[in-house]
Amino acid sequence: MSEKFDIGIYADFLIPMNSSKVKEKFFIGIKKNRIATVQPYKPQLKTKCKKFIFGKNMLCMPGLVNGHVHLPMTLFRGLEDDVPFHVWLFERILPLEQKIVDKGFIKAGTDLAALESIRFGVTTVNEMYFYLEETAKSIDKSGLRAIISQTFADFPLPEDKDLGRDKFAVVEKALKKYQDHSRIRVGLGPHAPYSCSDDLLVKIRDFAKLHKLPIHIHVSETKKEVDDSLNQYKKTPPQRLYELGILSDKTICAHCVHLNEEDQKIFTKTKAVVVHNPDSNLKLASGMAPISEYREKGISTMFGTDGTASNNDLSVLGAMDIGTKVQKLSQKKESSFGAYEAVRMATVEGARNLGYSDLGTIEEGMLADMILLDLSFPHLQPVNNIFSHLVYSAQGLEVDTTICDGKILMKNKKVLSLNQNQVFSNAQKWQKKIEKQLRTIKGE
Amino acid sequence: MSEKFDIGIYADFLIPMNSSKVKEKFFIGIKKNRIATVQPYKPQLKTKCKKFIFGKNMLCMPGLVNGHVHLPMTLFRGLEDDVPFHVWLFERILPLEQKIVDKGFIKAGTDLAALESIRFGVTTVNEMYFYLEETAKSIDKSGLRAIISQTFADFPLPEDKDLGRDKFAVVEKALKKYQDHSRIRVGLGPHAPYSCSDDLLVKIRDFAKLHKLPIHIHVSETKKEVDDSLNQYKKTPPQRLYELGILSDKTICAHCVHLNEEDQKIFTKTKAVVVHNPDSNLKLASGMAPISEYREKGISTMFGTDGTASNNDLSVLGAMDIGTKVQKLSQKKESSFGAYEAVRMATVEGARNLGYSDLGTIEEGMLADMILLDLSFPHLQPVNNIFSHLVYSAQGLEVDTTICDGKILMKNKKVLSLNQNQVFSNAQKWQKKIEKQLRTIKGE
Repeated sequence: MSEKFDIGIYADFLIPMNSSKVKEKFFIGIKKNRIATVQPYKPQLKTKCKKFIFGKNMLCMPGLVNGHVHLPMTLFRGLEDDVPFHVWLFERILPLEQKIVDKGFIKAGTDLAALESIRFGVTTVNEMYFYLEETAKSIDKSGLRAIISQTFADFPLPEDKDLGRDKFAVVEKALKKYQDHSRIRVGLGPHAPYSCSDDLLVKIRDFAKLHKLPIHIHVSETKKEVDDSLNQYKKTPPQRLYELGILSDKTICAHCVHLNEEDQKIFTKTKAVVVHNPDSNLKLASGMAPISEYREKGISTMFGTDGTASNNDLSVLGAMDIGTKVQKLSQKKESSFGAYEAVRMATVEGARNLGYSDLGTIEEGMLADMILLDLSFPHLQPVNNIFSHLVYSAQGLEVDTTICDGKILMKNKKVLSLNQNQVFSNAQKWQKKIEKQLRTIKGE
Repeated sequence: MSEKFDIGIYADFLIPMNSSKVKEKFFIGIKKNRIATVQPYKPQLKTKCKKFIFGKNMLCMPGLVNGHVHLPMTLFRGLEDDVPFHVWLFERILPLEQKIVDKGFIKAGTDLAALESIRFGVTTVNEMYFYLEETAKSIDKSGLRAIISQTFADFPLPEDKDLGRDKFAVVEKALKKYQDHSRIRVGLGPHAPYSCSDDLLVKIRDFAKLHKLPIHIHVSETKKEVDDSLNQYKKTPPQRLYELGILSDKTICAHCVHLNEEDQKIFTKTKAVVVHNPDSNLKLASGMAPISEYREKGISTMFGTDGTASNNDLSVLGAMDIGTKVQKLSQKKESSFGAYEAVRMATVEGARNLGYSDLGTIEEGMLADMILLDLSFPHLQPVNNIFSHLVYSAQGLEVDTTICDGKILMKNKKVLSLNQNQVFSNAQKWQKKIEKQLRTIKGE
């Protein structure tokens, strides 16, 4: 019994998420980046820990998993809100991206988004944007776990000026650099069925198979997208992707708001993953995916926040709240999609859906990604029902401690892996540039 | 220039809410319970203040107004969630209330709810539950502003054992006690059209007119309620209330999820107020009131949280977030119901709708109810758009300072007017009693 834990945690409450049981007064011992033990707390355990975290009035649970995000877009938060979608996207955001996105933008935006994710207890993100390597550098420093996807599309990307059009070359370079990284994986991000030709999608499919890479793609986000696809291809987007052989359990499909019966069967059969982004789908008036129906049909599901330009925050707890509540209304059933299911989706199911077999529960041998959530807030009292409090009452800022891959990224609600003041002042500098550029675009 | 302010505030940002303008680096001077000046900050102003609050990186705005709540029910938070509504209400909550609600319960629940409201920057609440005087005592101590309504219904109330059935007598006593109180007003709370006879409603109408009291009532919350009313009375609930003369600009109607065209005309004409409780209406699968449509028709609207048994928190900022996003989807328009409108509804419109003519904006002469919200959180950076950040990104816990009626109720995110540890431990004691009673009710 002389073994030393790198980190030891006492928690008043623990939800390991291998069942719906809540354990009280438990100890979690971490060695390197793995969980070494989970057992009832005894005072002598404390003496075996190099670092000890005392979670009085705290809930320990697996770190949250964000299935769909565009981290650097965090610099666009709140920009041109409440204008119609086509104006927002085609007349504001896209022209702005072409003019302003460069390596500096990516660093500033990813740093801010990583800071926010850690603050909200998110430990794994499934990312898709531009300048993969810059994003990876920033993520690496932040301590988060991530799959970072290279965006592919038939239209020019803001990064082309620096990186050229051959995105497979960019991916190959990144694969070499990050092949042995403990937290960073590289993925392929064909933007959407409507922005990628059959030819490009087939190349991506073959490259993904060869290198065993996950694919991250927007699918059936709006009704217009589905109608356009039916007009052009006589197929829905999932039907087209299925016939091109793109869909498998390594394909992470964001949104899937509008899936017909046949589409849903394709998802059940291929085990392709649906990422539910309720804030974004509501705010952009895209529709509401019938997630509880999908789940009953055996479709793999997880939560995402989408980028902050359409949410406007990166809180997975926020997505769980709004996602479950709207589901109850749209399914006309108060009991559809309960709190425990939502927590499963945001932790163990999310991790498994992203291909991590050793992540998402607090058990011996698992990767040490976990959070402590402070229950000593009025809105979490009395502690009647942990799962309900987490989903319907908690917001994100209650997270006190964030641990990823055995490293403490936040303690006492202070992020340790990034310099908050520096990140904020850099973001503010970019905000001024963005504002100026936006005025030019709008002809003001 | 030797005048002294009781409290002086410097704020990096100020939204006075008499327009959509954002002012920077402003000073607000408070004398007694009123705003004495609002002007650009100069260092010498600080010397004129007995207490000075330095709002660096903070946004000053009017305190939030909660249009519909049942404060003591906060002890039921998270209880029996995700079960069908009729089981939840008729087999769990109502039997539990009959068995357990007494003066001690009311104090414990109201204290916790007041603590939570102050923490979330809510300064005015429109309350309806039992044991009016106990609630008032607790509210008085907390420092909040409130209209506290006496519940009326044809069925027995948990308070009857102590207070008898004559609720008008209870109100008369309270009216005498609180007639000169600066923060507490007494109101009449006929529970709902379906739980009050015509006879009772007419008595309430006459008593309200005589004493110039506001009326607080649940209206058209579920489709079933409307169908039942049509069956029984051949009228919708608003049509029945209108014919009984209950509806005026002093009638605050919670929910109004299901209003037909004629109902809506009645609301426009009578100026009766609709309180929108999006969290509760979603979570109980009641439906979604088309608030932006109501507003276009000139109906008075405001936000409410409802009780935490169906939300599950008292954050008005949370209601604004979910309320606006769901409205965009249900109205199929990204631009419907923008952020500035939502902030108006939660501040100045809310205050006016509750009958306060001198509340809800930050201007000279107004009642000194205001909050400082800390913008130095990652999810509120960069500060692109104050209104958008408030509605779509903020959650409630960012509130740093809460001032009501010229008194500082919270500073540096610590509530000063209540002892948090005591309130928590009292709530936990009640939670144990509730759990035991619930097991008996469920026959476990």
